[in-house]
This record gives sequence, C-alpha cells and structure tokens, in this order.
Amino acid sequence: MNLRHVIESQQFTVPLLLELFDRTRRMEAVVARGGTKDYERRIMATLFYRSSTRTRFSFEAAMHRLGGQVLSTENGNEFSSAVKGESLEDTIRILGNYADVIVLRHTEEGGAHRASLVSPVPVINAGEGEGGQHPTQALLDLYTIHRECKTLNGLSVALIGALDVGRTARSLAYLLSKFERVKFWFIAPPEMQVKPDILAYLDKYRVQYELLSDPAKVLPTVDVVYQTRIDRERLQRRDIDLSVYNIDANVLRALKPNAVIMHPLPRSVEIDPAVDADPRAVYFRQARNGLFVRMALLSILFDRE
Amino acid sequence: MNLRHVIESQQFTVPLLLELFDRTRRMEAVVARGGTKDYERRIMATLFYRSSTRTRFSFEAAMHRLGGQVLSTENGNEFSSAVKGESLEDTIRILGNYADVIVLRHTEEGGAHRASLVSPVPVINAGEGEGGQHPTQALLDLYTIHRECKTLNGLSVALIGALDVGRTARSLAYLLSKFERVKFWFIAPPEMQVKPDILAYLDKYRVQYELLSDPAKVLPTVDVVYQTRIDRERLQRRDIDLSVYNIDANVLRALKPNAVIMHPLPRSVEIDPAVDADPRAVYFRQARNGLFVRMALLSILFDRE
Amino acid sequence: MNLRHVIESQQFTVPLLLELFDRTRRMEAVVARGGTKDYERRIMATLFYRSSTRTRFSFEAAMHRLGGQVLSTENGNEFSSAVKGESLEDTIRILGNYADVIVLRHTEEGGAHRASLVSPVPVINAGEGEGGQHPTQALLDLYTIHRECKTLNGLSVALIGALDVGRTARSLAYLLSKFERVKFWFIAPPEMQVKPDILAYLDKYRVQYELLSDPAKVLPTVDVVYQTRIDRERLQRRDIDLSVYNIDANVLRALKPNAVIMHPLPRSVEIDPAVDADPRAVYFRQARNGLFVRMALLSILFDRE
Repeated sequence: MNLRHVIESQQFTVPLLLELFDRTRRMEAVVARGGTKDYERRIMATLFYRSSTRTRFSFEAAMHRLGGQVLSTENGNEFSSAVKGESLEDTIRILGNYADVIVLRHTEEGGAHRASLVSPVPVINAGEGEGGQHPTQALLDLYTIHRECKTLNGLSVALIGALDVGRTARSLAYLLSKFERVKFWFIAPPEMQVKPDILAYLDKYRVQYELLSDPAKVLPTVDVVYQTRIDRERLQRRDIDLSVYNIDANVLRALKPNAVIMHPLPRSVEIDPAVDADPRAVYFRQARNGLFVRMALLSILFDRE
Repeated sequence: MNLRHVIESQQFTVPLLLELFDRTRRMEAVVARGGTKDYERRIMATLFYRSSTRTRFSFEAAMHRLGGQVLSTENGNEFSSAVKGESLEDTIRILGNYADVIVLRHTEEGGAHRASLVSPVPVINAGEGEGGQHPTQALLDLYTIHRECKTLNGLSVALIGALDVGRTARSLAYLLSKFERVKFWFIAPPEMQVKPDILAYLDKYRVQYELLSDPAKVLPTVDVVYQTRIDRERLQRRDIDLSVYNIDANVLRALKPNAVIMHPLPRSVEIDPAVDADPRAVYFRQARNGLFVRMALLSILFDRE
Repeated sequence: MNLRHVIESQQFTVPLLLELFDRTRRMEAVVARGGTKDYERRIMATLFYRSSTRTRFSFEAAMHRLGGQVLSTENGNEFSSAVKGESLEDTIRILGNYADVIVLRHTEEGGAHRASLVSPVPVINAGEGEGGQHPTQALLDLYTIHRECKTLNGLSVALIGALDVGRTARSLAYLLSKFERVKFWFIAPPEMQVKPDILAYLDKYRVQYELLSDPAKVLPTVDVVYQTRIDRERLQRRDIDLSVYNIDANVLRALKPNAVIMHPLPRSVEIDPAVDADPRAVYFRQARNGLFVRMALLSILFDRE
C-alpha cells in the first residue's frame, strides 16, 4: 500500500480501501489482546488548530495501542504564538523534527495538503475548515458498513437529517459511490436537503439516488440508516419540527432485521436512548471502529518508511 | 479483593482496607526501584469536568509508574461540546472504547455512580461536586495514619480548621470510625464546627468525639493532628482570627513526640513552613502516599479482569 | 560530569560544554535509529507557569526519545490554584514525589534556583521571567555553532536585530566568550543596540566586539549570522524600517560560502523564506539540535543518580 500522507478520501481506491479494512480487522484482534509493542519507538504529534478532544483522543488511543508515544498540542495557535503569524509550514518543519507522524486539524481547507508539501514526516488530516475533508471519519464510517453488512456492494443507504451542512453525508456519498449498485436515499425537509454538487457527482458516476422528505415509506427497505447530527438552535430558529426524522421505537419496528443504524456522535435528541439496546444500533461500535481504522492507517504509514 | 469500580469510601470494609494498604506498601518498593512494566499495555483516561491538576497528576504518575499509558482530558466539557448536552453516559461509553480504566471528576454528586452503570471499563471517582465523595483522598489519608502510627485502632485524632466545609473531615470520620476505640476532637470556632450529620453518624456507630474551640488543652494528648485548609477570604469576611488554629513552633512543643501532623495540601498560612523540618510533619509524605494508594487501586482493578 | 540541576549557562565550563556536546552528538545517532529504551522507567514533569508550547514539546520529545514518560503541566498556576498563593517550593516538593526530573518555566528570575534548593529531584530551567536565563536555548545555539563550524574558537559572529530585548544575544555572548579569539559584531539601529552590561562583561573578559548599524560591510567576513526575532508592533510604533536587517537573497550573495545563518525561531519577516533552501540556512537544524541537547542533558542528570 503506497501511502505517504492521508489528506483526502479521494486518495483511497477500492483495492486500497479493502487492504486498509483487512488491516483494520486485524487491529481489532491486536486491541483484544491489549495492544502491541511493534511501534514502541514511534512518536505521534497532534497539532490541532481547532480543538476536537474526541478526534484527538481516538488518535492518541490508537497510537498508545500500537505501543507508541504522543506529543499533544490541543491549541495549535499557541505553538505559533511567540511571533504572531508563524506560517503553518514553519510549524510543521519544526514538529517534523520531534515526531514520526503529524496529525493535523487546520482551520482552513487545504491546510493538510500544504503541510504535506513541507513535512519531513507523514501528515494525517484530522479534519479541516468547516465543510472540508475529514478522511479518517469517512473511512471509519465506511469500515463500519463493511464490517456490519459484510459487503459494500448493492447497498441501499438512507442519509437522514440536516444534509445541507456537515461533511458526513458528502464524504460517505463520495466513498460509497466507488462501489457497485449503491442506492442513496437523502431524507430531509426540503430546506435542508443535500447540496447540488453531491447530486452532480452522483449523476456523473451514475449512482442511483432519491430525495425524500418523509422517511416512513423508505425505512423498511434500507440496509443502512445514517442519522446525522441536528443543530437544535438552527431548527428552533426555522421553526421546523424534525422529530419526524428521529430514530425511535417506531423506526426500529419499521427497519429490516439486518439493517444498521449509524451516527457520527455525539448525538443529541435525534436518536432515542431506548434505541441503544437494539442490536441494529451500531453507533458505539462505529466510534470504536475509529480506533481500529486509525491504528491501521498509522501502522501503514510507519511500515512504509 | 472484589473491586469493579471505586465510587465511594463506604465500599471499603476493614479487610478490604487492610488488603489495599498491604498492596500500597508494596507499591512503595516498586517506585523505589523505578516502577514496573507489569501494566505496560494498559491505558488510563482522565476525564475531569472540573480541573484538578494536582489530583490528575497523582493518577497519571501512578499509571506511568505501573508502566501504562495515559489519555488526558483536563476539560471534560470539551469532550462533549460538539453538541451541547451530550450525556455523561454517552461520553463514558465512547471513552470506554479507548481506555482500560476511566478516572472521573464530575461536577455533580452521583456522577461517578452513573458512569459506572454504563462503563465497559472500571471507573474511579476522583472527586465530585462540592462536598461529594473523593475516595482516593480519603484512602491516602487513612493509609498515611496506618503507615505512620502502625495501627488504626485506639487513636486519638484532632481535626482542626474550617470543619463545616470541605469533605476531608467528613471522609476521615467515616473511614476511621470503622476501627476500634477511635476518639475524635473537632477543633474549630463555633461558627465553623462540623455539621450535625457527621455527629449523628458517629453517635450511631458509638464513636467518641468532642467539640472544642481551643486546641491548646488537647494537643498534648492526640496521636494525629489533621489540619485542614483555610479559606482566608472567608475568614476576613467573617472577621475571625484563625491564627490560634495554626500549626507553628508552639504546637510542636505541645505535641507528643510520636504524634503526626497531616494536611491535604496545598496549604496556606495554617502551617508555618518552620514546621516542615519536624519529623512529625508528614504532609509531604502524605501527598506521596497518594501515588502509592492510586497505584495499588489501579493494579487491583487491572488484576481483577 | 557533575551536574545536579541545570539553572544557568554560567554553570557550564568549557570542558563541561565539550563533554555535553560529545554526548549530544551521540544522541543524534540515537534518534536516527528511533530512540532508546535506556530511560524507560524515568518520568519527567513539565511545570510551566508561562505557556511555551514550543519549548515544552522539545523537552517532551527528548524524554520520549530516551524511552521515558511525561507529566505535562502547561499551566503551573492551576497546579497551585486550590489555595491561592501556594509557594513554588511546596509545588516542587509535591511534584518531586511524582517525577524524576522537573522542567520548570517560572515567571520570575531566580525561580529555578529557588526550586532547586528544595527539590528532591533535578530541576531544569526552561526559561524564566522576561530577560532571565534560558540555558537550554543557549546551549543548543552554541552546539549548533560547534556542529556547523567544527570549532568554537576564532569565530567572527554577527548578532543582528533588536538586540536590546530578548535573552538570545546575551546568552550567546556569555557562552561564546568562554572560547578563544571570538569577535562579536552587534548590528542594530542605535536605539536597539545591546545593553551596556553585556559590553562591560565582554570588556572584562577582553573579548573583541564592535557596534554597527549597517550590516553590509561586515557580512562578507563573518562565520556566523545570528538573526534575532523582530517584534513588528514595536517597530511600527517607533516608525523604524528594519528591512535593512532582514536576511534575503542579497545577504546570501554577500556571505562567505561556509558561513551559517541562525535564528531562534519562530521567525517573522526577518528571514525571507527563499533563504531556507540555502545550505547555509541552519535554523531548522538548530531547532532540531534542541532535541539532541535536551536528550543529552536529561541523560546526564539521570546517569548521575
């Protein structure tokens, strides 16, 4: 697997994804026996210009399970603060002296790419800007579907919620459309439907999709329900009742017995806690898969050198 | 020792305490030879909704001396901030994917108990709310008495200071009253005396105690002086002169040669630095004992699995 | 090498410096093979009363490359905050229970010395006050010259920039003047020239120096150009054009083929990024040397025990 930096989902071809997921699966076994010491001399630096404790923790846990060490910068601006306006490039050059891999969350789209151009060590994009790439989240979502559905072909996937914002729906649509006979259902109130660029992309690759405002009639047919976060303030501002889009006991009754319910977490009201006990609720396993996918990515980057 | 979570001091029976202290004693030897690698695949996460650098450090040092790794969250709210109001339960479920033990300081009483109900890994309560439980502090206090006095029976213990606030006096009274023939002296200005609930508890278990406002006549008789923190602003507001309750050279002259002087630290004016050199001043050893007690607790939780 | 604490540059005699640099050189080889496990039971605590992510990271990376563990306190005040005004001494005594070495950045000159008087473990001064000592920065600067110029004798060194503030120029002048036939050129606008105390020091030790406001005529003769940080706000306030002191392609043309260009980083406009590719631009290697020097110092302190 020829991987020098992890910058965007588009880097990952189908063979690369399947190889990554094979290694990810093996990482589950590694964690089950408490981790490995194979990478004990490796140091990972996290450089987060925007705080994201959850993502940072997932990476740090992955590094520790591989036996390595962590340098943790929660506030990338402080790293550069002695002189205002130190360039990202200079900061990366210096951090590249200390660490064997840099996990970067930058505030601007393209930040991770810029970093990769000057970094002496691999760079992993841990999310950037508002709607920019967050490839490890996309990969863990895809891995979860792969793991739970045993296939990535022929799937019927319902994306539900405020689909006009956030990158989750976009990333998943891009990645899943690499596989065969996928069908997307975009389920949202009209004013929150997916943006035209995603639809144009799907048209170009001849991927089937349908836009809906009512989930009821589709839920009994889908393999995957991907519920997205709901910004409650935004809903109240618009006076929209999104409870029709919530996952609750009624939805559970409608779903196929082998369907899976996903969510990027953290959740708010959009999934009823009563759903947690249902075996089709996989969102906590999905979060756990983030650990395995990141371990697999880190190990690939280290092995390559 | 059957210990799944460490939530409150009441969990600890006398046999459990003595077994814990035996292991704590052995941890002193482990540290003396630089630590162990026995737990090198273990990861501890600290989740502090209220910052407490001192307690966090003691736990992290304990984990490192056991050979393990640490995921450090100084600000638990940030962990949950992407969507306001993520439940403690969801946060614990996710952290439980990354770590083998969670050290929690929550803002509300009962938080650690709630966490333990959903956590896939052991939870240790590192203090909660304002006057809530802080069992590892109570255990290190008791261990210090055990270690210095060679017994926990038949002791005469003076608690001095603002006894109406803080949990130190409360916890120590609860734990020590499990042992035989203990006598407490609560020494404070009347407006800062211990709350009735402690006295009711001691009455119920037929533990001897006495309330005093003048330490002078009791000091020559006690085995343990437990000095508590003084909030100077509060004193000034009330126009109280607490210097009569300070530990200084005069107190040293009054105390028995084998008495011990304890304090939870950090101290302010209530212990004169001139006291530090006296062999009866054990408060820095007491802080150090926190390291050993936490190592013992962590190792018990890990061994049990 | 008899080293108990690292408090100030003046501790380092010429033989001590050369021994340190010999060990530093060996640390380069250690890092090239991924680090060592020789110090895997050692714990380093960073206690920074003033945030300095860059310096902290360099120390933490050094400790990890030695195989050890890190307790990280970015905000020393929080450590002491439960009771306002806990003394530095008490904090050090407690931290000394948890760690095998304390890396301290205090707000006041003399803080590291005070800490060393009570600490049960070695203390390293990681910078203090505004213009106080920052010995590891001074040592890495000197090591870089030693490494790049193959000697510390007979050098001609130009210090450029706002020489009246900052400690870089001061430290370097003190350390380099221990060697033979060094000549300093202090190049700055008159209102930003070095303070008289440095000149008095150089006079006392009969070190040659010259004050200049125009770098042009000196640059072709020097072995080392040490460019310092420029506070742009200060310049704008004074309406000074410092661009004449910038390092750019013109300066590169003027410099000797074997001269070196140094800078403590982070840089602002005072070094043109176009200079980076020139083999004489050693400032990123200089930052990297900080890692090796700190590894050498830590290992010396550990070996001594």
